[in-house]
Amino acid sequence: VEELVIVIGSAQFSYTVDNPFTAGERVEMLKLAAFEEGISWDRLFVIPVNDVQSHSVWVSHVKARSPSFEVVFTGNSFVKLLFEDEGFEVRDIPLLERDKFNATEIRKKMIGGGNWEGLVPKSVADFIKKIDGIRRIKIWGSNQ
Amino acid sequence: VEELVIVIGSAQFSYTVDNPFTAGERVEMLKLAAFEEGISWDRLFVIPVNDVQSHSVWVSHVKARSPSFEVVFTGNSFVKLLFEDEGFEVRDIPLLERDKFNATEIRKKMIGGGNWEGLVPKSVADFIKKIDGIRRIKIWGSNQ
Amino acid sequence: VEELVIVIGSAQFSYTVDNPFTAGERVEMLKLAAFEEGISWDRLFVIPVNDVQSHSVWVSHVKARSPSFEVVFTGNSFVKLLFEDEGFEVRDIPLLERDKFNATEIRKKMIGGGNWEGLVPKSVADFIKKIDGIRRIKIWGSNQ
Amino acid sequence: VEELVIVIGSAQFSYTVDNPFTAGERVEMLKLAAFEEGISWDRLFVIPVNDVQSHSVWVSHVKARSPSFEVVFTGNSFVKLLFEDEGFEVRDIPLLERDKFNATEIRKKMIGGGNWEGLVPKSVADFIKKIDGIRRIKIWGSNQ
Amino acid sequence: VEELVIVIGSAQFSYTVDNPFTAGERVEMLKLAAFEEGISWDRLFVIPVNDVQSHSVWVSHVKARSPSFEVVFTGNSFVKLLFEDEGFEVRDIPLLERDKFNATEIRKKMIGGGNWEGLVPKSVADFIKKIDGIRRIKIWGSNQ
Amino acid sequence: VEELVIVIGSAQFSYTVDNPFTAGERVEMLKLAAFEEGISWDRLFVIPVNDVQSHSVWVSHVKARSPSFEVVFTGNSFVKLLFEDEGFEVRDIPLLERDKFNATEIRKKMIGGGNWEGLVPKSVADFIKKIDGIRRIKIWGSNQ
Repeated sequence: VEELVIVIGSAQFSYTVDNPFTAGERVEMLKLAAFEEGISWDRLFVIPVNDVQSHSVWVSHVKARSPSFEVVFTGNSFVKLLFEDEGFEVRDIPLLERDKFNATEIRKKMIGGGNWEGLVPKSVADFIKKIDGIRRIKIWGSNQ
Repeated sequence: VEELVIVIGSAQFSYTVDNPFTAGERVEMLKLAAFEEGISWDRLFVIPVNDVQSHSVWVSHVKARSPSFEVVFTGNSFVKLLFEDEGFEVRDIPLLERDKFNATEIRKKMIGGGNWEGLVPKSVADFIKKIDGIRRIKIWGSNQ
Repeated sequence: VEELVIVIGSAQFSYTVDNPFTAGERVEMLKLAAFEEGISWDRLFVIPVNDVQSHSVWVSHVKARSPSFEVVFTGNSFVKLLFEDEGFEVRDIPLLERDKFNATEIRKKMIGGGNWEGLVPKSVADFIKKIDGIRRIKIWGSNQ
Repeated sequence: VEELVIVIGSAQFSYTVDNPFTAGERVEMLKLAAFEEGISWDRLFVIPVNDVQSHSVWVSHVKARSPSFEVVFTGNSFVKLLFEDEGFEVRDIPLLERDKFNATEIRKKMIGGGNWEGLVPKSVADFIKKIDGIRRIKIWGSNQ
Repeated sequence: VEELVIVIGSAQFSYTVDNPFTAGERVEMLKLAAFEEGISWDRLFVIPVNDVQSHSVWVSHVKARSPSFEVVFTGNSFVKLLFEDEGFEVRDIPLLERDKFNATEIRKKMIGGGNWEGLVPKSVADFIKKIDGIRRIKIWGSNQ
Repeated sequence: VEELVIVIGSAQFSYTVDNPFTAGERVEMLKLAAFEEGISWDRLFVIPVNDVQSHSVWVSHVKARSPSFEVVFTGNSFVKLLFEDEGFEVRDIPLLERDKFNATEIRKKMIGGGNWEGLVPKSVADFIKKIDGIRRIKIWGSNQ
């Protein structure tokens, strides 16, 4: 892979149960994580893409927002279906220790007071604390 | 300046007179230009932002899409007004040789057959030719 | 009835649990079914209508998309309410063997491997197989 | 408090389970209630505001729709969070007898035939009966 | 007339040439003008309504946002047409000294430095100065 | 050509200068014209498609609304460009006597009192008169 485009889906949401952070905050966390791991930003494009109601149009939206790409990598079978139905080559990517590094599980720990910090890069944990991100996540645990 | 966020406005448009290229193509051209000039992508965030109908909400949209920022640089007095009315510090940036490096002028040369290639970085000119971008621009000169 | 307007609701959706097919595919299936049954297309209008958030505006949307109509036929009590509140005459239509010819039931059979093909016209079954429609429906059974 | 701005949220919805009434009907009921209680309309602004997908932009939407305000009163911890994250002073308001004067409970009584009329001002009860509002609420009890 | 509903159209716009002020600011100015003239707010509803793309649906949008109404007053022949085509009684209202009390003319004076203050109620003029509204209007005179 | 899909563009507009009629009225006129010419509706699909802001996504929208198609016929060079850039075969269709059978010219005659009726099928002329369509068109001639 020469260059990688990372799509941030559901970019229009924030302060929700599933998407507590704005697209801008998610971009910032991705960059912090990349730098902490020594991955150069130079070969990455990070592209926020809104959800659209017609899933059959979503691939076209991604294409309009992204530099051109040749292969799609995803671990999500629905994303795989959408891109294949538009004629793209899609490759599965294995998700490492999915039970552990899993957004739902991490949010549960954040609400319940578990050790979520060990599951994200240190710079990301610091960022979440700086913007008081735990409060956003807890509010859905208590409020609804 | 430690890090710079470049906002791509009117990101939802493409194939129009004023915005012939998709947001994704514009991101790609920015990266090509940066690399040709030896500017590292590492200190840049490129953020596409859609126009919104209520200009008074637009600053809030930019904030939701962008990493947090402290100072706004712009050469556009309307953008300056919007950010100042939301309490931001805004600094003017001088536009170099505006008569020459000017999107409207460059598009006019593209339509009329003038030497537009000398006015953009070489890698960007190559990219525009590769995607047959001149055809898109010419069509508005002829069609409407 | 001289002419019949068939409204395809939720036209903006596709590849979802409830609306696996695009509006275009639904139009095509309706035509296939009509032809198989020997019903002339000549007396039918098939009109896709998007959902709108304000239900009280939805009747107005239907009117803007449809040829003018005098009587509304529906088996859905909510649609009946909306049209009656806008002053339309609404007549109930009996749904034949609703337990059997029921979209939810048919989708369940598609996911579980039951005999769904006997519940739709043959040309529609062929169409669904041609576009690999079962895969779309199964993905929601497995994915979510 | 010199003047009070009452925000009607989710203003784009109507004929739904949670928002059976249009924004216009809700404005009208608020005015009827205010008049029945002898509260002058002169010190009130009633402002309908649509939901937006990005909660982080919602405060900005409220500001664009409302006369300027200095303090936010709310009994909802999520609304409190959104306004505080935008730098507003937010004060809690106690909700009186929340178990009793509670929209969900009132709608349940409307569906089940309980005494909902004693829980709303008389002029509001009359208004709901005039527009046949109980039918709208019952339809969701029966239809879904 | 027992009660009057004033519709603020194009409510979604602000900071534009034609709609420099937000809907909230326009509500506030209407109230200031009413109070200066001794008109009680008690018999007024001020309802902001967004433009919609399908004009044939716009009347329905107004109905969803407004308390119910029986007669429409307008000096605008297009608004008259839309409401008449939906079956409403529409009465013309004479516009007094239209050449003088005319938004376009007032904005021209604001840009050119003419005496605009004499053409609006004093409290409104004060409000516009307080929010630095002239700057917004001038920017379009200079910027585009 | 076995079956023809006619796309009605800008379907969301009505009562405007360029699109005085609703999508539903346009469908109805197309059917009247087809019947008057003895063209069977059986081989036609008439598909209303809204404009979208990103032209590069528009082809995908058409595909989601339409039965599948293999060849695109158009006399419009911009539509040709959009479909070709998505890989479709596009064939030009000659427009007969474009100076005469031209929507802009016909609307001019409608406003000015010229003989527009000779330029449209008789059943369409009758339909336009029945819905008082000339008033809609004249209002833009007089109002703006």
